Amino acid sequence: MSDLRLGVCYYPEQWPESIWQADAQRMRELGIEQVRIAEFAWSRMEPSPGQYDWAWLDRAIERLAGAGLKIVMCTPTATPPKWLIDAHPQILPVGADGHTRAFGSRRHYDFSSPEYFEAAGKIARQVAQRYGQHPAVSAWQIDNEFGCHSTVLSYSKHAVTRFRQWLATRYGTIQALNEAWGTVFWSMEYRTFDEIDAPVGTVTEAHPAHRLDYRRFASDEVVRFNRMQVEIVREHSPGRPVVHNFMQLFSEFDHYRVAADLDVAAWDSYPLGGLEEAWFDAPTKARWLRTGHPDYTSFNHDLYRGMSRQPFWVMEQQPGPVNWARWNPAPLPGMVRTWSWEAFAHGAGCVSYFRWRQVPFAQEQMHAGLNTPDNQPDIGAGEARQVASEIAVLPATLEQPHSKVALVFDYQSKWLLDIQPQGIDFNYTRFAFEYYSALRSLGLDVDIVSKEASFDGYRLIVVPSMAIVSDDFVTRLGQSGAQLVFGPRTGSKTDVLSIPSNLPPGPLTALLPLRIWRVESLRPNTALELMYQGKPGTAHHWREFIEVPVEAAVLSTYPDGGAAVIRHSHCFYLGSLFDEATTRAVMRDAARAAGLQVERLDEGVRLARRAGLTFVFNYGDSTYAVPPDATLLFGEAQVGPQQVTVFRPAALGQPGQVKEATAAAAS
Amino acid sequence: MSDLRLGVCYYPEQWPESIWQADAQRMRELGIEQVRIAEFAWSRMEPSPGQYDWAWLDRAIERLAGAGLKIVMCTPTATPPKWLIDAHPQILPVGADGHTRAFGSRRHYDFSSPEYFEAAGKIARQVAQRYGQHPAVSAWQIDNEFGCHSTVLSYSKHAVTRFRQWLATRYGTIQALNEAWGTVFWSMEYRTFDEIDAPVGTVTEAHPAHRLDYRRFASDEVVRFNRMQVEIVREHSPGRPVVHNFMQLFSEFDHYRVAADLDVAAWDSYPLGGLEEAWFDAPTKARWLRTGHPDYTSFNHDLYRGMSRQPFWVMEQQPGPVNWARWNPAPLPGMVRTWSWEAFAHGAGCVSYFRWRQVPFAQEQMHAGLNTPDNQPDIGAGEARQVASEIAVLPATLEQPHSKVALVFDYQSKWLLDIQPQGIDFNYTRFAFEYYSALRSLGLDVDIVSKEASFDGYRLIVVPSMAIVSDDFVTRLGQSGAQLVFGPRTGSKTDVLSIPSNLPPGPLTALLPLRIWRVESLRPNTALELMYQGKPGTAHHWREFIEVPVEAAVLSTYPDGGAAVIRHSHCFYLGSLFDEATTRAVMRDAARAAGLQVERLDEGVRLARRAGLTFVFNYGDSTYAVPPDATLLFGEAQVGPQQVTVFRPAALGQPGQVKEATAAAAS
Amino acid sequence: MSDLRLGVCYYPEQWPESIWQADAQRMRELGIEQVRIAEFAWSRMEPSPGQYDWAWLDRAIERLAGAGLKIVMCTPTATPPKWLIDAHPQILPVGADGHTRAFGSRRHYDFSSPEYFEAAGKIARQVAQRYGQHPAVSAWQIDNEFGCHSTVLSYSKHAVTRFRQWLATRYGTIQALNEAWGTVFWSMEYRTFDEIDAPVGTVTEAHPAHRLDYRRFASDEVVRFNRMQVEIVREHSPGRPVVHNFMQLFSEFDHYRVAADLDVAAWDSYPLGGLEEAWFDAPTKARWLRTGHPDYTSFNHDLYRGMSRQPFWVMEQQPGPVNWARWNPAPLPGMVRTWSWEAFAHGAGCVSYFRWRQVPFAQEQMHAGLNTPDNQPDIGAGEARQVASEIAVLPATLEQPHSKVALVFDYQSKWLLDIQPQGIDFNYTRFAFEYYSALRSLGLDVDIVSKEASFDGYRLIVVPSMAIVSDDFVTRLGQSGAQLVFGPRTGSKTDVLSIPSNLPPGPLTALLPLRIWRVESLRPNTALELMYQGKPGTAHHWREFIEVPVEAAVLSTYPDGGAAVIRHSHCFYLGSLFDEATTRAVMRDAARAAGLQVERLDEGVRLARRAGLTFVFNYGDSTYAVPPDATLLFGEAQVGPQQVTVFRPAALGQPGQVKEATAAAAS
Repeated sequence: MSDLRLGVCYYPEQWPESIWQADAQRMRELGIEQVRIAEFAWSRMEPSPGQYDWAWLDRAIERLAGAGLKIVMCTPTATPPKWLIDAHPQILPVGADGHTRAFGSRRHYDFSSPEYFEAAGKIARQVAQRYGQHPAVSAWQIDNEFGCHSTVLSYSKHAVTRFRQWLATRYGTIQALNEAWGTVFWSMEYRTFDEIDAPVGTVTEAHPAHRLDYRRFASDEVVRFNRMQVEIVREHSPGRPVVHNFMQLFSEFDHYRVAADLDVAAWDSYPLGGLEEAWFDAPTKARWLRTGHPDYTSFNHDLYRGMSRQPFWVMEQQPGPVNWARWNPAPLPGMVRTWSWEAFAHGAGCVSYFRWRQVPFAQEQMHAGLNTPDNQPDIGAGEARQVASEIAVLPATLEQPHSKVALVFDYQSKWLLDIQPQGIDFNYTRFAFEYYSALRSLGLDVDIVSKEASFDGYRLIVVPSMAIVSDDFVTRLGQSGAQLVFGPRTGSKTDVLSIPSNLPPGPLTALLPLRIWRVESLRPNTALELMYQGKPGTAHHWREFIEVPVEAAVLSTYPDGGAAVIRHSHCFYLGSLFDEATTRAVMRDAARAAGLQVERLDEGVRLARRAGLTFVFNYGDSTYAVPPDATLLFGEAQVGPQQVTVFRPAALGQPGQVKEATAAAAS
Repeated sequence: MSDLRLGVCYYPEQWPESIWQADAQRMRELGIEQVRIAEFAWSRMEPSPGQYDWAWLDRAIERLAGAGLKIVMCTPTATPPKWLIDAHPQILPVGADGHTRAFGSRRHYDFSSPEYFEAAGKIARQVAQRYGQHPAVSAWQIDNEFGCHSTVLSYSKHAVTRFRQWLATRYGTIQALNEAWGTVFWSMEYRTFDEIDAPVGTVTEAHPAHRLDYRRFASDEVVRFNRMQVEIVREHSPGRPVVHNFMQLFSEFDHYRVAADLDVAAWDSYPLGGLEEAWFDAPTKARWLRTGHPDYTSFNHDLYRGMSRQPFWVMEQQPGPVNWARWNPAPLPGMVRTWSWEAFAHGAGCVSYFRWRQVPFAQEQMHAGLNTPDNQPDIGAGEARQVASEIAVLPATLEQPHSKVALVFDYQSKWLLDIQPQGIDFNYTRFAFEYYSALRSLGLDVDIVSKEASFDGYRLIVVPSMAIVSDDFVTRLGQSGAQLVFGPRTGSKTDVLSIPSNLPPGPLTALLPLRIWRVESLRPNTALELMYQGKPGTAHHWREFIEVPVEAAVLSTYPDGGAAVIRHSHCFYLGSLFDEATTRAVMRDAARAAGLQVERLDEGVRLARRAGLTFVFNYGDSTYAVPPDATLLFGEAQVGPQQVTVFRPAALGQPGQVKEATAAAAS
Repeated sequence: MSDLRLGVCYYPEQWPESIWQADAQRMRELGIEQVRIAEFAWSRMEPSPGQYDWAWLDRAIERLAGAGLKIVMCTPTATPPKWLIDAHPQILPVGADGHTRAFGSRRHYDFSSPEYFEAAGKIARQVAQRYGQHPAVSAWQIDNEFGCHSTVLSYSKHAVTRFRQWLATRYGTIQALNEAWGTVFWSMEYRTFDEIDAPVGTVTEAHPAHRLDYRRFASDEVVRFNRMQVEIVREHSPGRPVVHNFMQLFSEFDHYRVAADLDVAAWDSYPLGGLEEAWFDAPTKARWLRTGHPDYTSFNHDLYRGMSRQPFWVMEQQPGPVNWARWNPAPLPGMVRTWSWEAFAHGAGCVSYFRWRQVPFAQEQMHAGLNTPDNQPDIGAGEARQVASEIAVLPATLEQPHSKVALVFDYQSKWLLDIQPQGIDFNYTRFAFEYYSALRSLGLDVDIVSKEASFDGYRLIVVPSMAIVSDDFVTRLGQSGAQLVFGPRTGSKTDVLSIPSNLPPGPLTALLPLRIWRVESLRPNTALELMYQGKPGTAHHWREFIEVPVEAAVLSTYPDGGAAVIRHSHCFYLGSLFDEATTRAVMRDAARAAGLQVERLDEGVRLARRAGLTFVFNYGDSTYAVPPDATLLFGEAQVGPQQVTVFRPAALGQPGQVKEATAAAAS
């Protein structure tokens, strides 16, 4: 029995009871071991207030368990039923436009509603009591995709009331708040906490510290809501892992803090929809139309792996075209398998397909499943079956070693730079992603970690645009002994969104004694030319004017002589967002300085290592040649487009490993 | 006396009484026989509640009738006066944002308001009683441009109340509704009809069946409102045709059903504004800037002709630049005449210019008329005079034969595909239009018909993307004996917006045994290459993955081997939206299979036949040569740009006619 | 002591009292003579209702005055404190969407609120009483940037009530209003003034005369609010100039009328932010990224100079990157000096930098100051110091002669053409700017004046698209003896936004007997080709169809023979917006006809004359050569990029001067 397993999402309430048993049987035949159920079934569990109907669910579980499937049971709080909304209309969230959002889809609740906090706890307790000890129930999911459809922030009276309490707790006195925010500016001073509203609907932009605190508050409300349910479930179903399914690159709340209350951080992987809806330009979206971007999925794997106590899961894996992006292309044949294996290679314990069968009605009827609505296997089903058979080829247990490279990802920096971008297209996540992508194109394995993570054992730590850095963080970075790479705007703000008294990079000057005395943002049709290591490049979006100490090396300058890339002691500093090649070159040099081997991979080829194995994934058009002395576990030695190969290398000396001898060839 | 006549729209209340008589006289001199009046004159008919003032209107009618003009009298319900709104504020419609729309322009009423239903009936009865028997009143117009300015859908309490009743009538029980819609998805189940709101303001998209039913309901409300007025007018003015002036390619309600209560379906033709506001890309809009698209106007003619009991009318004909499009260019000289003749050639009984004279004040002061505000004839007046003189050259009666080609246009499919486009730019009307345009560029006459139409006598029936097809429709198509062409997504949904249990094309599989097991939408910067009959082409927007029975012919494939165009028995199936040349080639082959002659026309040249005559219209830059053996009725034998020629062909063997011998040359 | 002086904006309340004295001292050392304070300090002046705290402000003034600085004291009414809003929530303005705008930034008040009118008067009186006689207080600023953040128009109940009164005053009877507006159109007739609402939220566009009157009303409310404060300040602080700081090219109220109540019209100059946010296309924004457009700043100088009784001021001068544009680049070194000198050259009495030091907190923390947040001088400080030293080189008094060229700028025309653009990108200000730019590129000095200005002494008067012209205006133009240039749409509307009974150009036909019987607007990807004086050009956006009297000369025609540029007697008429070269050529010919010398300047080079001196400004990349016989006051004889030179010419015969002999070379 492998530690790796496949799962599926299933909705017995949406299908005739007559086919439940056959469904369960076919799941098992496909190699599926785990099934998630019931996360949207509240109206069937409790059709009227206080009148519960568990009989159908008992029977469904019986069918699934009878086929040998393990069950991931859910609390159904993402979809409160109409009768609850009608009884307590203030459960509904309120938008930034002041309009109350309506019943009729999902996630129509305000995290700050006391009525909903109570009702959600009540139904969670009912489900946990009923099924907490059921032998087939192997894990629990709390709610579903917190924050989806812009539901973290609500502007209701309940939210404002709780925000005032949150502020009172944080600042103690209103004088302290006025001082911290700087409300003297524009006579925005408050006399009591009760004078403070949500930072919305103002004549021009609301106060940035006010906005940042509102986002922190809203994030804390998600933490509070999740924790309440986790505690109820643990009380009634101890020993079973509690999971939440996060979303890809979603950042409206602090995922590290929610995950801290869970056993397993899971995420829902939709590579094609994700590509279409993200910041990529149109040519990039066309380039990776049917595969997804080669670094998008693994970025999420590496992020959620870092915040999960047990091996992370992909709770929902795209099995074919979806319905919710602006355009919804079909994956190329082979990609469902590729994505599945990429998850395992990056440390997943489970890959669970969404969904067993395409449902012919309601909002998601155009979302593919493993089976078509007429109950024929779709392409994804065949690829899942192949994955199941390949799992058997691998060792039962794959221990994941710590990577040598860490990238620090910080939700608060995202919020802060959204609030104060200075140029409207400044995108924190894009910076983090482009640094990650450069590292991955060099064949390196990367851990994505929080600023509170231990940095022990890392040789290279990359910190993209982390606006707020604490003294402690700087100290720990310095003590790590690692090579450090910083993006622009790192250390540019204090905890209350002010400019540090010593100017950016603020506390980071302890390691990197720069003085960034001016910044500018640049419109898209402007760019700055530069040279890095003898090759021409360009800088975009942003430029910093930096006083550089004489002891530091300026690796690249703008045409006016200003520093673009600086190296000082163990630190590299990037003062802009550069073209792909320049970013890669800086990361290459930092990795080499860290003693790490790099390998310049062809476009779309990516490597991952786990338990001494190397996994090759090919999103592109070229072919990757496995070293001739390697031992193949499965796949071809010439890894073609949309193919996966796993091999055991003959020896050490791999990219991402500490170099023993000479540097590998890399451009 | 010809069956064809010219009319004009006139607003005596907007001009000094002193010039009414001269206006009437000059209308007659220009060749105008009919004048529409009073559709916005409520505040002059009833200046205060219950206080009617007919004297001015009596005198206006006297002047017009005295000059020999026939009068189209209107009910003035498109513009309720301020006193009525102040007395019943709930008459105002409510937008999707929940905001009540304000008085101060027009169409500020909710079709579901019981107060307005009563008030509209009352004023309609007053007008009908007063003028129903007037000898000069030859026809009636109900209201004006139903639905203009997004007024079909309202989200008021009145609308929701009536929607609940509508649902109760449709589904009988709430259980049946829950079952039909599939509300078990996301716990959206209802316990009573009174729990159901309008499908708006939800956190993410509202339930698609809920949305489709709300649009059906709203369409039915328009039908109900129109029928109420039609019945009142017929009661007081029997024997005179009742008309409504529809809008160009407007589709927010089911025009067939409204038209079923009328005698004449009229429409308002603004070729240049229509071009600017439609889906065409910028180069296309520049190409036809001053002529309109060569198929846009005739598409409307052919559509409204099909739903009109008597010959349809153009109630408002653009006479020069308009005011309401984003940009408002001037027509080229000759185009007002061309548009007028195109209407008659397609079966119009009347072409009525909007308006007699440009009004110097209020919202439409920049809208040209036949006369300038300083009362000089504008270009359009001269062209109208020419049309009047040319009418005299034609036979008095022009009987319109049934065409050999039908295109099925379906409002419900438009709504459904708007609700669930799957790719954000999927546009049902564009598909219908491009198929129509391909047919017209081959010299074919086309009837646009509803799915309930009789298909007797058609040789070729084209069905673009009709999402819901009934068994009866399929049966009638099959029995027609015609060649059939289907666009993608035909038969892809059931009546409650679900996927058919046998997958698309659903009931159509009775004729065309395909299984469309997957679809995808494509972003604009992606296209699929293909070959059709040896020529390269491209597919856009959409692609279907089709299981094709062995007995069918695959006429074109995508690079991965999937079928793009399929022919089976009498059916052609198009699985995407193709480039113009490929679409034309498929239509050409279908027409030939139907035994129809085709003629590949130069860009912008179009032909129409009526009563054995051929009308040539030239929107383009080339010259069309009339066959040397033809008899010219008017116009040149070499039909230059912006010119019209009418001839009687020497013999049969024309495009669109059944071939007697060999196929005509066509590319 | 020069008449020219430098100032700075300073916020003692935002900084520790301990550094006030050093700040004041350093200001003086830099050459700054004047400091503006307190315009956002209400919450510190009156922390709670009726409880005033002047002590801190007394001390701040003492420090500043003690260093020899003159003080511009402000009324703090741009930022009412929270306690006032909570006591009178109806102070908050209401947006076009009907939503009340919230507290939390600035300008959160409705000009029509009676509560705020009273409260603003009360605080203004308090400040004026306290500091009106202070010897260091040399001037007063009323409020701050009236209208910023779209606050001129409010749709509150208070506003509507006052609007009704305003209408009653304007029209006398409701019958007169109905007649003037033409409300008979669409039955929009009113029976009483109380039936009239704000022209917002209507189903389609509201009545244009209604909209225009609402904008006039709103403009009058700003006049009333400003005047109230001016009178209070004058009462308590007689003899000191009263100032308001207007914004660059802002046009939501009639600045001439507000300025008529002031002593000094000041404006806030942000050349880079202004470029980014204005109508310029992306290449133009990239071209002038770090300098601003060479005519943008001077356009504002020439506009505000014309409405200021005393020499106008730049109250806020951009000193580095700002924070509020979509992108915020840094100025090139030298530009802060260049902008400062350009202001003086155009007649400014004072240039005041915003702000002394970049503040590290709140909304504007990313806005540069003369000093960085860590209190080091920024680039702007050095350039200000240089300007101060250069002032000393010039004569103490610089009398500004009247220019020979006037451009008539009219706010009402802007509103009218916004309301009825006919093509969505018709932009009145762009027309005015492009004409101005053409004149400036010919080396001409230009006065921008109101339609009420005296035209005595002008040789060339340019009137861009002034929609409403009065008989009196036409008479005065005719009597001026000047050459006249008119843009399209001049005279196209009456005072109630109707078309003149004789068609456009309405009353202007007294000078220019044209009949513009048709107009059209053109989408961006269409243009009309033409020739002007043998050179090809293009027309954009707009075209007029013009009956030209035989005695007039048609200088340019469209391909269809229609007139594009007409000359008749002293008048030139432009019937479209032309390419840059054609516009310049027409202006060149008009200037020559006026007997003015012109000089074709290189891209980005601009000249200004004051008191017999010529100032050269170089925004571009070329070098301007000062005539060899000139006397340099400062700067180089070869004026390089971003440089300024001032010289005294050897003789007359300069561009913009009346020609004595032959025409200068100009293309």
